[in-house]
Amino acid sequence: MKNTISKTMTLPLNNVQINDSFWSYYINLVRDVVVPYQWDALNDRIPNAEPSHAIKNFKIAAGEEQGEYYGMVFQDSDVAKWLEAVGYLLAVERDPELEKIADEVIDIIAKAQREDGYLNTYYTLKEPNNRWTDLCECHELYCAGHMIEGAVAYYRATGKRKILDVVIKLADHIDDVFGSEPGKLQGYDGHQEIELALMKLYEVTYDEKYVKLCQFFLEERGKEPYFYDIEAKKRGGTHHWADDFMIKDKAYSQAHKPINEQEKAIGHAVRFVYMCAGIAHLAAETGNRDMIQTCQRLWRNMVTKQMYITGGIGSQRHGEAFSSDYDLPNDTVYAETCASIGLIFFAQRMMQLEPVRKYADVMERALYNTVLGGMSRDGKSFFYVNPLEVYPKAYENNQNYDHVKPVRQKWFGCACCPPNVARMLASLGQYIYTVQENTVYAQLYISGKAEFEFESNRVILEQNSNYPWDGNINFTVQADRETNFSIALRIPEWCDQAEITVNGERKSLDGIMADGFAILEGSWKTGDEIQLILSMPVQRVKGHPYIRQTAGKVALQRGPLVYCIEEADNGSNLQQVMLPTDGKLEVNSDQNLFGGMQVIIGQAIKQKAENWGEALYKSNPKIETEAVTLKFIPYFSWANRGLGEMQVWVQERETI
Amino acid sequence: MKNTISKTMTLPLNNVQINDSFWSYYINLVRDVVVPYQWDALNDRIPNAEPSHAIKNFKIAAGEEQGEYYGMVFQDSDVAKWLEAVGYLLAVERDPELEKIADEVIDIIAKAQREDGYLNTYYTLKEPNNRWTDLCECHELYCAGHMIEGAVAYYRATGKRKILDVVIKLADHIDDVFGSEPGKLQGYDGHQEIELALMKLYEVTYDEKYVKLCQFFLEERGKEPYFYDIEAKKRGGTHHWADDFMIKDKAYSQAHKPINEQEKAIGHAVRFVYMCAGIAHLAAETGNRDMIQTCQRLWRNMVTKQMYITGGIGSQRHGEAFSSDYDLPNDTVYAETCASIGLIFFAQRMMQLEPVRKYADVMERALYNTVLGGMSRDGKSFFYVNPLEVYPKAYENNQNYDHVKPVRQKWFGCACCPPNVARMLASLGQYIYTVQENTVYAQLYISGKAEFEFESNRVILEQNSNYPWDGNINFTVQADRETNFSIALRIPEWCDQAEITVNGERKSLDGIMADGFAILEGSWKTGDEIQLILSMPVQRVKGHPYIRQTAGKVALQRGPLVYCIEEADNGSNLQQVMLPTDGKLEVNSDQNLFGGMQVIIGQAIKQKAENWGEALYKSNPKIETEAVTLKFIPYFSWANRGLGEMQVWVQERETI
Repeated sequence: MKNTISKTMTLPLNNVQINDSFWSYYINLVRDVVVPYQWDALNDRIPNAEPSHAIKNFKIAAGEEQGEYYGMVFQDSDVAKWLEAVGYLLAVERDPELEKIADEVIDIIAKAQREDGYLNTYYTLKEPNNRWTDLCECHELYCAGHMIEGAVAYYRATGKRKILDVVIKLADHIDDVFGSEPGKLQGYDGHQEIELALMKLYEVTYDEKYVKLCQFFLEERGKEPYFYDIEAKKRGGTHHWADDFMIKDKAYSQAHKPINEQEKAIGHAVRFVYMCAGIAHLAAETGNRDMIQTCQRLWRNMVTKQMYITGGIGSQRHGEAFSSDYDLPNDTVYAETCASIGLIFFAQRMMQLEPVRKYADVMERALYNTVLGGMSRDGKSFFYVNPLEVYPKAYENNQNYDHVKPVRQKWFGCACCPPNVARMLASLGQYIYTVQENTVYAQLYISGKAEFEFESNRVILEQNSNYPWDGNINFTVQADRETNFSIALRIPEWCDQAEITVNGERKSLDGIMADGFAILEGSWKTGDEIQLILSMPVQRVKGHPYIRQTAGKVALQRGPLVYCIEEADNGSNLQQVMLPTDGKLEVNSDQNLFGGMQVIIGQAIKQKAENWGEALYKSNPKIETEAVTLKFIPYFSWANRGLGEMQVWVQERETI
Repeated sequence: MKNTISKTMTLPLNNVQINDSFWSYYINLVRDVVVPYQWDALNDRIPNAEPSHAIKNFKIAAGEEQGEYYGMVFQDSDVAKWLEAVGYLLAVERDPELEKIADEVIDIIAKAQREDGYLNTYYTLKEPNNRWTDLCECHELYCAGHMIEGAVAYYRATGKRKILDVVIKLADHIDDVFGSEPGKLQGYDGHQEIELALMKLYEVTYDEKYVKLCQFFLEERGKEPYFYDIEAKKRGGTHHWADDFMIKDKAYSQAHKPINEQEKAIGHAVRFVYMCAGIAHLAAETGNRDMIQTCQRLWRNMVTKQMYITGGIGSQRHGEAFSSDYDLPNDTVYAETCASIGLIFFAQRMMQLEPVRKYADVMERALYNTVLGGMSRDGKSFFYVNPLEVYPKAYENNQNYDHVKPVRQKWFGCACCPPNVARMLASLGQYIYTVQENTVYAQLYISGKAEFEFESNRVILEQNSNYPWDGNINFTVQADRETNFSIALRIPEWCDQAEITVNGERKSLDGIMADGFAILEGSWKTGDEIQLILSMPVQRVKGHPYIRQTAGKVALQRGPLVYCIEEADNGSNLQQVMLPTDGKLEVNSDQNLFGGMQVIIGQAIKQKAENWGEALYKSNPKIETEAVTLKFIPYFSWANRGLGEMQVWVQERETI
């Protein structure tokens, strides 16, 4: 493939060792708790949790067990995502016991594959004669994509080809079925995923066929007459979901027009970002200018008109979808965990297309807030929907909030999010740096070592910090010999004041900033040290004047962390709280809270309700207030102390 | 029936002549436009409107036409409500042409009635063998109730018995089918309505059987095992709606427990208030203490925890239902027009149980705001849902607001609201006074003459005012001879300062106030004059501190009218507007607006968006504001000037 973009690369996961005071806890949790827990979940061994049946489906399809298929049409993908997470864990550190379990699963998956390469337990068990007849609704390509991602991760980690061969055979089968050639299906997936997976498969096989197939799927999307209608007609108009909205509402799966004509983030948010990640991945490989512009245009609409401060996207439950520009309700929100993970995939690939701070800023926002908040501190329960405001009492009787669970759940009937968090955290090492030619972009500040090659020399960069609690970040260089390359440090958009010293010498940022990165060119040798100091005061964040749900309100942010107030610290009726514009906000270290974290203590005012009486409405009432001290905790840590109210956006009271 | 309550009465409609600068327009509109328009709608003669087919259904059932039933299971009730409105119009002023149309409809209805008295075109045409098998979902008793109400109104107005005889036969048939006696159905209606209708039938027939049947239905409700389950089992578990939620969710139709054990306003709001009106009507007749307490308890929860400032009730779309205490979203609101009409029915009957201001205050609130706002100025389009905040741009893509139409509709597939508004306005004369023993309670201030009898003397009370624009209300007395009775004037809760003069002499309110009414005892003679001056400054209304949707916001009210801001006057992005606590608010007369109304001009501040830029969120931004002049119009008149934003609750900016 001709690549007109500057050559960029994702650092292989085994080139990165994370040793971070913040993240290592979560990565160990994924290894020690989450992956084993999810293995139990996939095997239906978690008491009182929604059943999964996903492993059982594979065993039945493999002929190893008797029984009936159970679960969503995309149940297979939960196993694939689990396998992918395992692959990432093994890439960092081999673990024979875990590998043994994975190998056994792989044996079952291989057995479940049909002779011709087809692999999908739902169709194999339930509708063997209906393969590829309902792409719109039935997730065959989505499941295939996840299996490919899992296989690539596992192969990269272990070098074992078995599952890779399975997915090559699967991808070849898909390539036989789909394509513009006569006799092939001119169709595309209902839930995008196969596209980015095919690009990953290409990266381990170097087989350009997969790039072409990816491009075919992306270019076919949205053509008229619509494929969903064509296949529905062929099926005789049947549908697999309760109603036929997926077929009718083309925008739900971004199939309403060709991708290069799409103007806005629309429809199912996860599908949207998975698609965009696929387009960006392909465009980085092929240099397709139209596709690059599509990525830029869709990115821009999403992050400047439809994203929550927490990096959540998708503000309506219906269709788990984007809403309209600037419509960002905090309580009836969707903001699916998976959508923010997909947003990170998209951001990572945009960084590879053009290393510009804004992509990494959004990646950081989504990671530290929504994605991390999607999992409990103990790794055993998860949010699917990530609200910015929760009032459990109001939810008792209003089904408008039914999708908003005020506490994390053990598992889900539709269990896409938990394994997605696991694979995201297990592969975190891939998101810290982007390498472009002779520049390494440090886009996330996570401590540990990473190994690069410049001028054929092995270079190790070590990061050290107490981020995100503290903005002092230290880099040290180790190199076989003195090597020319550039180190680009992201100066986050949230940071007003940054300082850099190189080997103790203060470096002016004037003239070295490019797209939000401070570019340190030089000839680096072992022992060189860079100190980056990002000032991290508490920031009062305001929403765009067009967002009506943030009007008159303020949110607190410090570094990448968005804060919130919870009933556990601040009592109930948080809507009565007002933060004065000149009130003192202090950062305090609370060592008892979740292993220690920085909280923000704010002087505030609370409207008193005691003497109001019973009337719902009063004319010219005397408003009684009292001074209160509010404790803000990082949003990601909310809902770890039982059921209660929570609010990110707090009423602001102007002090004149 | 033994009545332990002081004897109260509703003034017959032909005792009241409305001649009011505000209301006569609407009543004439009902006569000249709404009722003819709705007649066209029922006959499917409105272009581009949802079809009704209601008259056609009756003609087919009567054997006069061929065809199939079309419409909701309760389509019959639209004809009944139309007939009821016609009855009220004729009670005020006979109209041979209208009467002729009505008589023709009555002939058709009579023909559609089955030999045994049964009357329901849905079952007659679609499921003749399934009568009374799905009370929970199928509205047979609801339709019967409306037909009874229509018949009573028409009979009272014209003295013609034909339709009254039809409903007596129908009610007798129902009495044969339902009851505690062996062999009868121990069941009750899914949608309450028959209860209050039976009380009305009793009031023209004096047949106590109907009171007993009403009491049976009310007392049967909520008993375990649940009737809905029993009948569903008998049917083999079938259901008539898309899913079986009506059957499962007993609280949806207030059948979750016996009425006297119910604590809160819950479930479908219209059903709730119709039920409460029925209980109150029955209790006023029988003096049943438990039922009176039930009414008081449920009223209290509803108006002190679950009512909008506009008198709207039911804050969630799902189930058109009440939500939780203090959960009153302004944008995803339901606040069905019919629910506020039912609230007025309930309030009127509570006034008859105990003449206390609070009931009339709520009646006035619902009438002047939600009910009146439910219809366009030209009487040809209607709201079903009455939002307190509308942002059409946000609604384009968010199905969470699908039920909220930002402009009134010509007709509805479920067309309960338009004819309900018509019958409400046509019978407005019934709501002005409550008579209890020798006291006439003036509960609404609507100009015109009303005729009473005290001490066997005919007494005419004439009201004159420019209400609701002005709080000066004049009463003059005409009496055959000097007569002892009391005139009780409501001093509305919204009024801080009231003055009364009797024959020019100032009367102190001290010692004459009882439950919010100023009681003027006396011996009255022709020419006596009472002047009531209710001061009507603009009031800044605040919501209870527990309502999170009004926190930090203020609404303007003047007299009974709640005001709002519209895009037509104030531009878009109304969320950016802030009303300073010390800002000047002026009442202006705008003679060009909808035939002339008082608007409120307020000095306000608006956040400027021009220089904000593209970022969705900004840290410590400089907020640019500009002084703006806001024009508030009465809420009832919103959405008469095309599509645009609207807000009742406006951000408040404290001036210290």
